[in-house]
Amino acid sequence: MASTIDPSGSVTSPKGFVAGATYAGMKTYGEGKLDVALLASQLPCSVAATFTKNLLHSASVDINRTRVAGRPARAVVVNAGIANSSTGARGLADGERATELAGARLGIDPREVLICSTGVIGQFLPMEKIEAGIGAIKVTSAGGHDFARAIMTTDTRPKHASVRFGPYTLGGCTKGSGMIHPNMATMLAFLTTDAPVAAGFLQRTLSGVVERSFNLLSIDGDTSPSDTVLLFANGGAGGAVIDAGAAPLAGEFEEALDALCTYLAKEMARDGEGATKLIEFRVSGAASVGEARSLVRALSTSYLLKSAMHGADPNWGRIVAVVGRSGVAVSEPAVTVGICGICVFEGEQPTSFDAERVSEAMRGDTVVIEVELGAGDGTATGWGCDLSAEYVSINADYHT
Amino acid sequence: MASTIDPSGSVTSPKGFVAGATYAGMKTYGEGKLDVALLASQLPCSVAATFTKNLLHSASVDINRTRVAGRPARAVVVNAGIANSSTGARGLADGERATELAGARLGIDPREVLICSTGVIGQFLPMEKIEAGIGAIKVTSAGGHDFARAIMTTDTRPKHASVRFGPYTLGGCTKGSGMIHPNMATMLAFLTTDAPVAAGFLQRTLSGVVERSFNLLSIDGDTSPSDTVLLFANGGAGGAVIDAGAAPLAGEFEEALDALCTYLAKEMARDGEGATKLIEFRVSGAASVGEARSLVRALSTSYLLKSAMHGADPNWGRIVAVVGRSGVAVSEPAVTVGICGICVFEGEQPTSFDAERVSEAMRGDTVVIEVELGAGDGTATGWGCDLSAEYVSINADYHT
Repeated sequence: MASTIDPSGSVTSPKGFVAGATYAGMKTYGEGKLDVALLASQLPCSVAATFTKNLLHSASVDINRTRVAGRPARAVVVNAGIANSSTGARGLADGERATELAGARLGIDPREVLICSTGVIGQFLPMEKIEAGIGAIKVTSAGGHDFARAIMTTDTRPKHASVRFGPYTLGGCTKGSGMIHPNMATMLAFLTTDAPVAAGFLQRTLSGVVERSFNLLSIDGDTSPSDTVLLFANGGAGGAVIDAGAAPLAGEFEEALDALCTYLAKEMARDGEGATKLIEFRVSGAASVGEARSLVRALSTSYLLKSAMHGADPNWGRIVAVVGRSGVAVSEPAVTVGICGICVFEGEQPTSFDAERVSEAMRGDTVVIEVELGAGDGTATGWGCDLSAEYVSINADYHT
Repeated sequence: MASTIDPSGSVTSPKGFVAGATYAGMKTYGEGKLDVALLASQLPCSVAATFTKNLLHSASVDINRTRVAGRPARAVVVNAGIANSSTGARGLADGERATELAGARLGIDPREVLICSTGVIGQFLPMEKIEAGIGAIKVTSAGGHDFARAIMTTDTRPKHASVRFGPYTLGGCTKGSGMIHPNMATMLAFLTTDAPVAAGFLQRTLSGVVERSFNLLSIDGDTSPSDTVLLFANGGAGGAVIDAGAAPLAGEFEEALDALCTYLAKEMARDGEGATKLIEFRVSGAASVGEARSLVRALSTSYLLKSAMHGADPNWGRIVAVVGRSGVAVSEPAVTVGICGICVFEGEQPTSFDAERVSEAMRGDTVVIEVELGAGDGTATGWGCDLSAEYVSINADYHT
């Protein structure tokens, strides 16, 4: 693949984007202590977005859904610590007020400002702190890293990168470490590019890429009411507009977006709450791509499998148990299971694998689980993490 | 409700049932160290059964499915420590051989003997130990408690009870502490009655009761390939055959079976791996009973909710997040959430509840979560348990 990820890149790597952050006093945990952030394009933008399918979603998602519908947008204000979700009419008014404050600070039409909020559900935004915070933010073309830190909640490290395609740059960052089981969009992810991309093509490409990157990631099976992916394209690096079929740039753009989103999704899994390793699930031989994806989701959310991974236990019986209960079609005699490249189950029976050798391989920072179903040619790859006692402690103590 | 549970009762409380157990050397953990058991009726029986819907199920389930199909059965041999699942043709032959040994020991036709196996998936039965074990078992009418201990794996205590209806007794026991998310049947549960019950009515009543008891229980969301419920009715206490519509006994039998299965399901949740408390989920106002049950299952398997329960954290936002992602219909303005009898969310906003008071109530051994959806009149009640660091430790270390 031509797309090479630069882990030091960020949302301000593409030309014409600025960002900044400050500490307004909402986030009482985590490192960095930045909790309000702004990202803006100095030029008008095409924007594409995907949002949570959680029916009871945040006020911020409601506001964004209205604003992204065919209208231009070029900035986003983000607060971390409070999700502004299940807060009714007051939550909606608070969110709109925050976009007005951000528009005023950036000197742009407030209707071009989107908003994302992440943190505890069911608390109201402290508007005095939000107002003071937004007023204190200085945005610069070097602000992408501060932006990536400000949006973190239980994340242990910022997750950002960039990738080049043709004469253009695509940058992005994401956050999310718990309540991660994206459905249609994930958590908060912000993507920027200085390529000029037609709005319709931008949205279609983003939707497709999200389906095979963030939407195949699960940390704990819980879909957040705040999940949002925003992609801004400002054309800051010039050139003709990229639309569907524009060879070779349309394909290169999709490939670059795929590489960046997959990289960020894996970084999220690796930094899952309490996680000590990344687990990659590769399903093949499914009756359809949908069934392959469905099995990836069932595997990545199994308590027993996640616990076995934590203990580096090659307990393939738990993998088979998930396959059998998942509802996907299987041709039993053709089912094979591999762990870290070693086949452990084949021909309806365990192979004579060396359990110590497999366990040793599982002690690394990445475990690959391969399942062949023998029922068709549907394939999917997705990501999860192990379940540790630390996960429980984080979530039993992260009090409301 | 007329049915009073006697927690000291067992599968040998009804007349004409005998049981016994021994240690054959399969189970290397747990207390009691009994691991092979026999249960038999001294009289011919009607039998009803429900089995796992896991496609990749155990050899024992395969054997039982054939034998229960319209034929009489009056005994069951159980081994704990090895599930004999994903063991192919050899597993099937081993299971059949075990029923032959049990038939010979009991002096009955081996085709009237069923078999249940529970433990590690993908290991073969040690047939010499099984043979020696079965040969050493003495069955008596006082053997029900030994039987209940022998079938345990990671369970910390045996789970058995009996209940009276009319002139009859219904006894039962169950096991299961991990890989518990029954689908159609659960784990191993053995039920006996000395009432004379017609076979068709027996099966229909069992299937209905299992749907609203064991099938609404989840410890970790993983459906075992061994799940089996067996119900034997031997008529040992005499009287006319009970069939559908036989007032009042048909109704009293169903009520007694419901009470016993609900009691055993709650006992399983309370003894879930690493669990410190029982959580009861009461869903009302769903568009249908199916949707209400579906939401019970989504709530009882949420990592975040289970962790919050462990920490006695009244984090109702996690409940609302599950409702929103569960796929069930909701009328948002009508949604209410209660924890331990205290309303915490109503009218799309948090109530001004006393978080300390709710948290205090959650420190008890039972937490009740109530969710009203405002979308119809479907209701369901189900059970789960909290997620503790101990769960992870049990399942990271329970090595293959």
